[in-house]
Amino acid sequence: MTVFELPAVRELIEAALAEDIGRGDITTELTVPATLRATAVIVAKEAGVLAGAPLVDGVFAALGARDLSVAHHSSDGSGFAAGATLMTLEGAAADLLTGERTALNFLQRLCGVATLTRRFVEAVAGTRARIIDTRKTTPGWRALQKYAVRMGGGQNHRGGLDDGIWIDDNHLLAAGGVTAAVDAARRGAAHTTRIQVECATLAEVDEALAAGADAILLDNMSIDQLRAAVRRIAGRAIVEASGGVTLATVRAIAETGVDLISVGELTHSAPAIDLSMKIQHQDTQAPKGPA
Amino acid sequence: MTVFELPAVRELIEAALAEDIGRGDITTELTVPATLRATAVIVAKEAGVLAGAPLVDGVFAALGARDLSVAHHSSDGSGFAAGATLMTLEGAAADLLTGERTALNFLQRLCGVATLTRRFVEAVAGTRARIIDTRKTTPGWRALQKYAVRMGGGQNHRGGLDDGIWIDDNHLLAAGGVTAAVDAARRGAAHTTRIQVECATLAEVDEALAAGADAILLDNMSIDQLRAAVRRIAGRAIVEASGGVTLATVRAIAETGVDLISVGELTHSAPAIDLSMKIQHQDTQAPKGPA
Amino acid sequence: MTVFELPAVRELIEAALAEDIGRGDITTELTVPATLRATAVIVAKEAGVLAGAPLVDGVFAALGARDLSVAHHSSDGSGFAAGATLMTLEGAAADLLTGERTALNFLQRLCGVATLTRRFVEAVAGTRARIIDTRKTTPGWRALQKYAVRMGGGQNHRGGLDDGIWIDDNHLLAAGGVTAAVDAARRGAAHTTRIQVECATLAEVDEALAAGADAILLDNMSIDQLRAAVRRIAGRAIVEASGGVTLATVRAIAETGVDLISVGELTHSAPAIDLSMKIQHQDTQAPKGPA
Amino acid sequence: MTVFELPAVRELIEAALAEDIGRGDITTELTVPATLRATAVIVAKEAGVLAGAPLVDGVFAALGARDLSVAHHSSDGSGFAAGATLMTLEGAAADLLTGERTALNFLQRLCGVATLTRRFVEAVAGTRARIIDTRKTTPGWRALQKYAVRMGGGQNHRGGLDDGIWIDDNHLLAAGGVTAAVDAARRGAAHTTRIQVECATLAEVDEALAAGADAILLDNMSIDQLRAAVRRIAGRAIVEASGGVTLATVRAIAETGVDLISVGELTHSAPAIDLSMKIQHQDTQAPKGPA
Amino acid sequence: MTVFELPAVRELIEAALAEDIGRGDITTELTVPATLRATAVIVAKEAGVLAGAPLVDGVFAALGARDLSVAHHSSDGSGFAAGATLMTLEGAAADLLTGERTALNFLQRLCGVATLTRRFVEAVAGTRARIIDTRKTTPGWRALQKYAVRMGGGQNHRGGLDDGIWIDDNHLLAAGGVTAAVDAARRGAAHTTRIQVECATLAEVDEALAAGADAILLDNMSIDQLRAAVRRIAGRAIVEASGGVTLATVRAIAETGVDLISVGELTHSAPAIDLSMKIQHQDTQAPKGPA
Amino acid sequence: MTVFELPAVRELIEAALAEDIGRGDITTELTVPATLRATAVIVAKEAGVLAGAPLVDGVFAALGARDLSVAHHSSDGSGFAAGATLMTLEGAAADLLTGERTALNFLQRLCGVATLTRRFVEAVAGTRARIIDTRKTTPGWRALQKYAVRMGGGQNHRGGLDDGIWIDDNHLLAAGGVTAAVDAARRGAAHTTRIQVECATLAEVDEALAAGADAILLDNMSIDQLRAAVRRIAGRAIVEASGGVTLATVRAIAETGVDLISVGELTHSAPAIDLSMKIQHQDTQAPKGPA
Repeated sequence: MTVFELPAVRELIEAALAEDIGRGDITTELTVPATLRATAVIVAKEAGVLAGAPLVDGVFAALGARDLSVAHHSSDGSGFAAGATLMTLEGAAADLLTGERTALNFLQRLCGVATLTRRFVEAVAGTRARIIDTRKTTPGWRALQKYAVRMGGGQNHRGGLDDGIWIDDNHLLAAGGVTAAVDAARRGAAHTTRIQVECATLAEVDEALAAGADAILLDNMSIDQLRAAVRRIAGRAIVEASGGVTLATVRAIAETGVDLISVGELTHSAPAIDLSMKIQHQDTQAPKGPA
Repeated sequence: MTVFELPAVRELIEAALAEDIGRGDITTELTVPATLRATAVIVAKEAGVLAGAPLVDGVFAALGARDLSVAHHSSDGSGFAAGATLMTLEGAAADLLTGERTALNFLQRLCGVATLTRRFVEAVAGTRARIIDTRKTTPGWRALQKYAVRMGGGQNHRGGLDDGIWIDDNHLLAAGGVTAAVDAARRGAAHTTRIQVECATLAEVDEALAAGADAILLDNMSIDQLRAAVRRIAGRAIVEASGGVTLATVRAIAETGVDLISVGELTHSAPAIDLSMKIQHQDTQAPKGPA
Repeated sequence: MTVFELPAVRELIEAALAEDIGRGDITTELTVPATLRATAVIVAKEAGVLAGAPLVDGVFAALGARDLSVAHHSSDGSGFAAGATLMTLEGAAADLLTGERTALNFLQRLCGVATLTRRFVEAVAGTRARIIDTRKTTPGWRALQKYAVRMGGGQNHRGGLDDGIWIDDNHLLAAGGVTAAVDAARRGAAHTTRIQVECATLAEVDEALAAGADAILLDNMSIDQLRAAVRRIAGRAIVEASGGVTLATVRAIAETGVDLISVGELTHSAPAIDLSMKIQHQDTQAPKGPA
Repeated sequence: MTVFELPAVRELIEAALAEDIGRGDITTELTVPATLRATAVIVAKEAGVLAGAPLVDGVFAALGARDLSVAHHSSDGSGFAAGATLMTLEGAAADLLTGERTALNFLQRLCGVATLTRRFVEAVAGTRARIIDTRKTTPGWRALQKYAVRMGGGQNHRGGLDDGIWIDDNHLLAAGGVTAAVDAARRGAAHTTRIQVECATLAEVDEALAAGADAILLDNMSIDQLRAAVRRIAGRAIVEASGGVTLATVRAIAETGVDLISVGELTHSAPAIDLSMKIQHQDTQAPKGPA
Repeated sequence: MTVFELPAVRELIEAALAEDIGRGDITTELTVPATLRATAVIVAKEAGVLAGAPLVDGVFAALGARDLSVAHHSSDGSGFAAGATLMTLEGAAADLLTGERTALNFLQRLCGVATLTRRFVEAVAGTRARIIDTRKTTPGWRALQKYAVRMGGGQNHRGGLDDGIWIDDNHLLAAGGVTAAVDAARRGAAHTTRIQVECATLAEVDEALAAGADAILLDNMSIDQLRAAVRRIAGRAIVEASGGVTLATVRAIAETGVDLISVGELTHSAPAIDLSMKIQHQDTQAPKGPA
Repeated sequence: MTVFELPAVRELIEAALAEDIGRGDITTELTVPATLRATAVIVAKEAGVLAGAPLVDGVFAALGARDLSVAHHSSDGSGFAAGATLMTLEGAAADLLTGERTALNFLQRLCGVATLTRRFVEAVAGTRARIIDTRKTTPGWRALQKYAVRMGGGQNHRGGLDDGIWIDDNHLLAAGGVTAAVDAARRGAAHTTRIQVECATLAEVDEALAAGADAILLDNMSIDQLRAAVRRIAGRAIVEASGGVTLATVRAIAETGVDLISVGELTHSAPAIDLSMKIQHQDTQAPKGPA
């Protein structure tokens, strides 16, 4: 079961088609003969990293398109150049026209996330730091965007609020301090889960280590603070840096020795990659007729 | 019934909470007392245009938060400065912490769309051109993003494939030419619907006018071509310009005299506006206790 | 994607089977061997116009019937005589018996709508008037009934409240008059949408024309009023007549020169066409076994 | 839990609103101020029997209408005269306009079923026969139509295929005769369920009685045959007459002494009762403002 | 349409997979190559009666497993010995591992119900009494558990509150006595439904018989009381014994001559049968490659 | 958001009511006046531990019961004696009767799980071992049963396949050994997740430790083997014992020094606790009428 088969993803595809098609694609119904066959290609108008190619199959399957095939010329995680043909589709012209926009709307956005992730990953090459995502994902798109981050070479942070303990300053305040919070979490959480604590100062780092935190988030620290914190932690906990990370700053952060750098921009502001579908050829022959 | 009450929007809110919360917000459950009350503010970290404020109420309602109120200090469509406090929330600390990220994930993106739209609208101020959106919306977000475009001062193109006839070059080819396509559409479509034809050359514009098109899309034309097309059409059809429109080019396009300029970037690549929720005060008094 | 593949239609089929089958077809389970094969025909007991034939396939597919085929002897939109065999089904006897009633319940009603529509269409033959439907459809059946109207030779009015501007007297009152209402609609609606105004008097027709209405509904007017209104409008707007239209009155209305006549009866009171399914032959041979 | 609270009914109401409203009631949104209040009445334009009045409340509740009240002047099962005011609604004018058509679409059809049922019931007054419905209901409307039959004074046949054993000629053939079929049913069915057998001849009646059938359906028999069958059965089984029953023939059938007469027309062809909603008064005062 | 194809059962399977898989089977995704094929067997670790074998197919189908086959070595209703191999599966190793637990969770419980039912059925062998279930089923599992009861040789009581009239002491009190309650039920219920009355004393039995009850439940009576009641009823109504029935007491109850003995334990406390899935062989060859 | 508010739990409650009520509680509708009010108590017929009390509120809310209140006399996690009154309900008699069985069906099973868990927890009192559950839960009931385990004093294992890495022998074989499997998991899993490896021998334990496993499952080991493994691991990993644990064996297992003991029986075979609802008093006064 891949990410594309998760119920939430299948429901998103159906919602996307429903919101676009509504009561029916009236233009296509009125102007395109049902028997007309066509070939189409999806072409990149700029360079990028592919993510979400199987969604194109998924969109046309959800549309109920029969005798429609998708030949993939590149696979998720691969880079592509401007002008590259990513896939070739053959099927009823009406189906291709009805599903085109929804398929591209999915693909362009996931390629956008993978492409931006790849740029961050390349920016920290050679350091020990790994680029990870955040929970700042597009509502409804969590699983897909996290997949695209992996395709770009990034790693995922926890999937959601149930998937890992992550104690921030509000939790600390409510629980009555770091030690109390970490203890409560340790007692109640499954043993399969690590406990991460957000720290804004070196003093808090010390407290978190003393309380037995498994991982520490260094939030919005300067490069110097990060370097000091890494030294202080000295391998006793996993170290994540976070806060306002950009392509301009990420390398310096990575060089402080942190294990992980989380980047919200990957999923909240990655621009879409420009892709288009072109109908190349149309004829009315039967889909599978012999010569 | 506002856009926020449409079934598809309510389902998106629930899907968003489900994907973030999963089996439960274990950190909050383990560290925050159920009776703890708190006040929180949503603050803008950069300037923008507000859109989607009622979704914050919607997210916490869908979460099942009781005795949680949201005081709005600004309304959708208003501009805000960096540092502005957009709303104040009061409720159970646990609810605020559990719903925070989902609420912000919605709000940041819609403010992003409204803010970018406002910039395009301001760029064409004084011309007859109106800025409109496209179907290049985030799957699952069509109604919300189109609402945000309106809040930014833009106008909507059709809502989907069932909502207006829009004949592009593939439909023309399949139907056997402009006249045949427009005639077929006229015969089959409800009388409440206008017929728009996509044209890439002045010759096609002439054909579309002759066939009785109500609206004409001028696709990827140069400024000179646009100006010539507007002159040729001379008010006999609504004129839309489209294709690669940016903030750098939109003013010149508007000055050609077109009625509408459609901008895909509004909904496929608007960066999120940076917002944060801050817990300001916490106490454990009962929600409605007398003095 | 045909009307039969719209999500709402697929859900209606499933709801129909669920409400009829509930916890299971206990009679069939207890009395019909699972391996018994049968042939059945659907026969018309009175003349009519076919609409909804693909729903029979849809019902048995939703039932999960395997190795069941439907041979169609007539296609949607065709007339049939009393006694005509519309389709032949082959499959497991148990599946045929379990799905029979639901399949007929769909088919009879849509044939009823198409047949009544055809009678109205024939009654206005030779005039410029087209017969159109209304929003007085059976809840849950909008798309299906509008399809049946088309199969009967009618044309559809708008699909719903989001699909075209239609200003009635209540909207006028609320907006502060025709001009204000039409202006507000023009500013806010997508450019692909025409604006229709309901008028009860010639004075209102004049106002609507002055306000720039694209289409005018003449509501419950006498034949003389209709004739006068058509003259007054003189092609400046599309003209629809509405209100208490029957087979007895429709011809006279059509002869006034209106463009469209909307008939609520098509979808709120068309009697079902009498159809029955007959099991013709039963044997227990395996469905595809060799000799 | 009334019929109006069954999940299937609530889903039908939501589907009905969704198919009518789609992306939003654009006319009302653009022309009616959100703060405008109004009073409306639902008036009968012809006489009938009321059924489904609580659905009006249900439709406006599902629409999300706030501060909207419905005062009922008549209750389900009551007859009403032409011109009668059935209920008075007060609420936001926009809500009333958006929900009007869906509310009426439900109410008109159920009143139609109840009204036709009442006519059949009155036609057999004084005989022992009771009028019952069939499974020839509108897909998606089973529970509602059966409720309307009860409101008209009729009684319900089984709710569906799982709710009672009903052996017709195809089951008999498949099972190898009446005795085998009845025995198989008796062994497998819950003891709370009676077994009914469809018979076309007196010989079959004898067989069914011998096999121990609890109820017998006399299918398409002449009045003489019915009378003979009733004599032969002599109280040993419940007797139902069925097949082509009309208002013209039902009295004679009832006078043969049968217990039950099932009438498909009640639910497959009852014409809708003509009802309308009239907005009587509008003002923009706040709903609950003090003087 | 078998019980396994009912919408509620298909939804339960999907809910079961969703709750177990969540965002994905991360262990399998990270450690098992997608192309690895495997053979697995489901083996009984203790003796029992098989029920629910088709659910194993259903679980893997719902998982979206391609090229996965299940060979069944035993059929529902058959007994099996400890050590028996119930079925052999072939498919992608990853699919087998991901679906294993959900498939077993279904199968073990239904075998538990069937096995316990079989023991009760055997305990009353030779008497006229039949073992029946109750409504004390696991929420969400009604249809499946009742099916398992049948596979164990038991018979089903009514399916739910809509499926048979069953009047207990609270209904009697509310209705104003046995006669009033039975009369009201007779008037309102479909003629296909029998009326059962719960009685705690012989006096109540007399009343119920006089009121014309079709079936009588003897609730928590002693063996002597049961014997007396059976004599008193003397075939005039179906007799069910209920209340605290165990394997130790059921034989004596059966020997009193009652027709039916209902046993809540069958569905509320049957222990699961211990089954396991064993992967026997793994290779990476393509599923259908030629030699 | 508690476990009772999770969407999956709300859907299970609705499914439970739907499967029990179907087309309506006909007995109650026909025999109980709608205005009749009643008081009911839920009483324990045997001792146990309470879990799921809020579900009783949830069931009646989902039923749409108005003016129904539940007074809780005990809270989840508390023990109760035989005869204890757990809660008192007041509302419409019809609602109480319709919802009774579903409410009890939920409550009895969760009390069963909590009660059995409590016995295991008490059996290991004074050792370092904690009792944990498994994934052998009732399909559809995962979140509820795991909650009941916590109420019994147990701790939860991971929530599902996405919530923690858990490598068993099949994963090891597929991945090419312990080191390869652990490495692959480490590279791909979120840093918040620990990695657990299943070991059947001491040699495998050594391998798992060398590979850096965070937790080790000792599967079906003898007491001696367990003791040896605990010594060998010496705190370098969390130690879980599993396999055939019963109340008879659990103490000895705990005394070997393992950290965790997982017990499948808690959720696959806990017998239901016997509870009943008793209607105590009925009158027809209006729910809130003044004196």
